[in-house]
Amino acid sequence: MKYTPLIDQLIEALRCQSGIGPKSAQRIAFELLERNRQGAKQMADALHKAMDGVGHCERCRNFSETPVCTICSNPKRDQTSLCVVENPANVVSIEQTSSFLGRYFVLMGNLSPLDGIGPEEIGLDKLKSIVDQNAINEIILATGTTIEGEATAHYISQVFSGKAIKITRIAHGVPLGGELDLVDGGTLSHALASRQEI
Amino acid sequence: MKYTPLIDQLIEALRCQSGIGPKSAQRIAFELLERNRQGAKQMADALHKAMDGVGHCERCRNFSETPVCTICSNPKRDQTSLCVVENPANVVSIEQTSSFLGRYFVLMGNLSPLDGIGPEEIGLDKLKSIVDQNAINEIILATGTTIEGEATAHYISQVFSGKAIKITRIAHGVPLGGELDLVDGGTLSHALASRQEI
Repeated sequence: MKYTPLIDQLIEALRCQSGIGPKSAQRIAFELLERNRQGAKQMADALHKAMDGVGHCERCRNFSETPVCTICSNPKRDQTSLCVVENPANVVSIEQTSSFLGRYFVLMGNLSPLDGIGPEEIGLDKLKSIVDQNAINEIILATGTTIEGEATAHYISQVFSGKAIKITRIAHGVPLGGELDLVDGGTLSHALASRQEI
Repeated sequence: MKYTPLIDQLIEALRCQSGIGPKSAQRIAFELLERNRQGAKQMADALHKAMDGVGHCERCRNFSETPVCTICSNPKRDQTSLCVVENPANVVSIEQTSSFLGRYFVLMGNLSPLDGIGPEEIGLDKLKSIVDQNAINEIILATGTTIEGEATAHYISQVFSGKAIKITRIAHGVPLGGELDLVDGGTLSHALASRQEI
């Protein structure tokens, strides 16, 4: 025991946040105790409420406090276009661009057989039933460009390859405003190979 | 509202931890919701318990779960030597060296008239009464080397200057293993001025 038992437990508990190591946890614990006990209690209440109150949308699997999330239940969203992403943060990023008006499907992960994550874990059965029951024209695969993300996109494209649905992958290449000499070789090769006529 | 109301509240609440900005708070909230709801609830409980259960030692003002902390109530500690530090983290640092066997007095801050922190806020009345009621031989001033830390050390040394008590300041100079060319000029000047005969 380095501190008092309750402070030891607090420091240990704060480390469940990724990116918070022992030094940061100690600093945060002491700062909260010294200067912001009210804020710490509000944080504890917010944690309890969110962990109890936030579930998953039964349609798109995104975080939701209601059985169907606000995007899926919005009649103004294009129901023929479905964007497949890895996680809820991706939905936020795409929504912030205001450039996609369809609906989402959140895999909550990527295929990773070594970790025991197969098609069932990323909800492909639900994705199939959504595609079967709705007039989907296009599935946009917006998983990451990691090996797992590419493999997942490839797998999903194979699953729906027999159907009359356009399956697209978001473009990969040099970022807007990116200097060519600062872009990694893999990205640059891909950007050259995927060049388009103007 | 970017996310659901409960997630918005959670992200806002997580930011009461210093060093956690909006991006980190979003990442932590999503990770806890996706992968570690149990850990998040334990963290909430630990926060509540620590904020309710941890007070201050009525003698040294350090964090304590009992009226008098374990150091102050330990009869084996040297009661004639008192080390004055800024905050509880300093006590931990000094205790880890195992090179001080006396007791502490924790100011919980430094004199800072502009912020309304005067002698009363850093507990100098209590320090005086401890010195009056106990046979203190030495007061070690271990406040930081910031302007506020130096001013606080100077102020305390003045308060006790009339008494037959040895008042010392921890040594400042080149850190052990420190390369001279990596040490800042202020530290090096101080190290030269405070040179000792060997």
